[in-house]
Amino acid sequence: MPQALARQALLRLAETHELPGVRDRLLPMADTLAADLIALESGLGAVVEADGDLASKAAAHLLAAGGKRVRPVLCLLVAKAFPPGEPPPTVTLLAQVAELVHNATLLHDDVIDLGDVRRDRPTSRAIYGNAASVLGGDLLLVQALGLIEAAGVPQLVPSMLDVLRRMIGAESQQLENRGRADVNEADYFFVSEGKTASLFEWAMEAGARCVGAEEHEVRTLKRFGHEVGVAFQLLDDLLDLQDAPDSIGKNVLQDVQGGTVTYPVILALKNEPALASRLTSAAAGAADPELAEDILAAVHRSGALADCRKLIAQRTTRALAALEPLQPSAAKGALAAVATALTERAR
Amino acid sequence: MPQALARQALLRLAETHELPGVRDRLLPMADTLAADLIALESGLGAVVEADGDLASKAAAHLLAAGGKRVRPVLCLLVAKAFPPGEPPPTVTLLAQVAELVHNATLLHDDVIDLGDVRRDRPTSRAIYGNAASVLGGDLLLVQALGLIEAAGVPQLVPSMLDVLRRMIGAESQQLENRGRADVNEADYFFVSEGKTASLFEWAMEAGARCVGAEEHEVRTLKRFGHEVGVAFQLLDDLLDLQDAPDSIGKNVLQDVQGGTVTYPVILALKNEPALASRLTSAAAGAADPELAEDILAAVHRSGALADCRKLIAQRTTRALAALEPLQPSAAKGALAAVATALTERAR
Repeated sequence: MPQALARQALLRLAETHELPGVRDRLLPMADTLAADLIALESGLGAVVEADGDLASKAAAHLLAAGGKRVRPVLCLLVAKAFPPGEPPPTVTLLAQVAELVHNATLLHDDVIDLGDVRRDRPTSRAIYGNAASVLGGDLLLVQALGLIEAAGVPQLVPSMLDVLRRMIGAESQQLENRGRADVNEADYFFVSEGKTASLFEWAMEAGARCVGAEEHEVRTLKRFGHEVGVAFQLLDDLLDLQDAPDSIGKNVLQDVQGGTVTYPVILALKNEPALASRLTSAAAGAADPELAEDILAAVHRSGALADCRKLIAQRTTRALAALEPLQPSAAKGALAAVATALTERAR
Repeated sequence: MPQALARQALLRLAETHELPGVRDRLLPMADTLAADLIALESGLGAVVEADGDLASKAAAHLLAAGGKRVRPVLCLLVAKAFPPGEPPPTVTLLAQVAELVHNATLLHDDVIDLGDVRRDRPTSRAIYGNAASVLGGDLLLVQALGLIEAAGVPQLVPSMLDVLRRMIGAESQQLENRGRADVNEADYFFVSEGKTASLFEWAMEAGARCVGAEEHEVRTLKRFGHEVGVAFQLLDDLLDLQDAPDSIGKNVLQDVQGGTVTYPVILALKNEPALASRLTSAAAGAADPELAEDILAAVHRSGALADCRKLIAQRTTRALAALEPLQPSAAKGALAAVATALTERAR
């Protein structure tokens, strides 16, 4: 079972990196990463009892659905990028933490957004109810903090508490954005830095600290996590729009109602304020059958997709610069490959 | 403002202890406790910004509503019960933690139970919405963990994580009890030990550890917290029934629907299984106009109130025994007074 999930995760990771240059750079890591991912899945499987109480069941259901495991992979890679390239076993605990906290936020998000499907399966809240999903998220958080304590690496508990504060702040902002189509770029970055980048930063910090990195190295590597996290969110936004332009009307409407608007749409609405106020009315319940087409047209007119791609490329460049202090190694190459893949996928 | 809340807390605490013997034992502590409670309220006021984001507003609203602050009082008293009776300033942080975690659970409970009124005011969820109340609870929890870290007393982070695991387990059990009128005593104690006693234990542990108590002292004092916590919950159950016998029908029905049944009612239903199945049907929606009267009569027939009082007295005796290792002091007398008050109030 752990093997199956680990293989799945590697495949999903490989799919994101479907370009020859990237694959070549990930290849030298494939064997060691596969072993690490199997250990990761075993660990995640032991965190909650799949046949335990309702909170455990809700948490286990989501964990068993798999995922790309990108946060643990970053944590593992950065730890391996320090000589001699063989981090202590505690790194597996910290890699688990990054994934557990991510899953905890998903369990809570699905309750807030009333989500019914995730990773092609019914959500935990759809099966076990809202309260169980909230408790399942709480449980994963508590288990994650317990693992950080158990790992015994200094400073990682307070830095995780900072991450959680930023996440709560971002969620609060998102609640305040509900029904608003005039969300600006500053709001957008506040939310995506708080919800996504903060945990990417922590994954890098944890991997670096557990192999005894210097403070200045930790700072720089967190910067890598920050840039990759923001780019990751921007790429998600871009692919949403490119892959399913037909559903843009419904999606954008739901986004506004839920307090999130994707970056390209923010740019387009900023250029055409009349469209933003039509969208606000529609979010409040006023039918507007031509809205979807008009938004899509506005997105293209505004050049928002190109701007979004440019921003992802900029973030990747900054991320790569943050890797400079590291000595050359297969792990460093793999970290670079993850960052580069985001830009290449965005093209 | 902190002064007003501290005075209010002292008054509420005094009300619980409205018997001359108890008041006399609390009296020597009145001045020092008042100063501590003012410091406590200032601290709690600084934990979240009342004009901050939605999570902060939801949390600040509940904190400002006051309360008896019984958990922080226990934490302060036990620390003062060790010579020289003047604990380090960190004890104020730990006392805050006990109150913050309690308030965090209230913010989440109100969402799970859809509560609209608490401490005679509209709940945070009624004002700011469910999601804000969940986030407000999360925020208080994160701030509480941050204060434990800041206090720097060893072992208190892992022991708080254990408390949180027990709370989540108890909440899960409560969800599974929904709609069931055949909840047994084991279920009842599992829930009240997890939801109430666990945090009373921690408050005692934290106060003891911050003045360098020995392991065996910590263990015994946690036992005091455990017994007082269980007695506290039993007293709540008893007073609910004694003070408002007219509303028993509605309350018991709501309890069954919400997954909690009070201890005296559990005893009565156990004696009369036919009544339990009528209650289950009523919880599922079948009208039963005579149910309320029949339950009240069954409670009296079963002698459940007397059993409940006896149990509270037993728990108080055990709690007092757990204080034995402490040298005589005003603070020890005050701790004993808190435990004794529970029994005396139950008569």
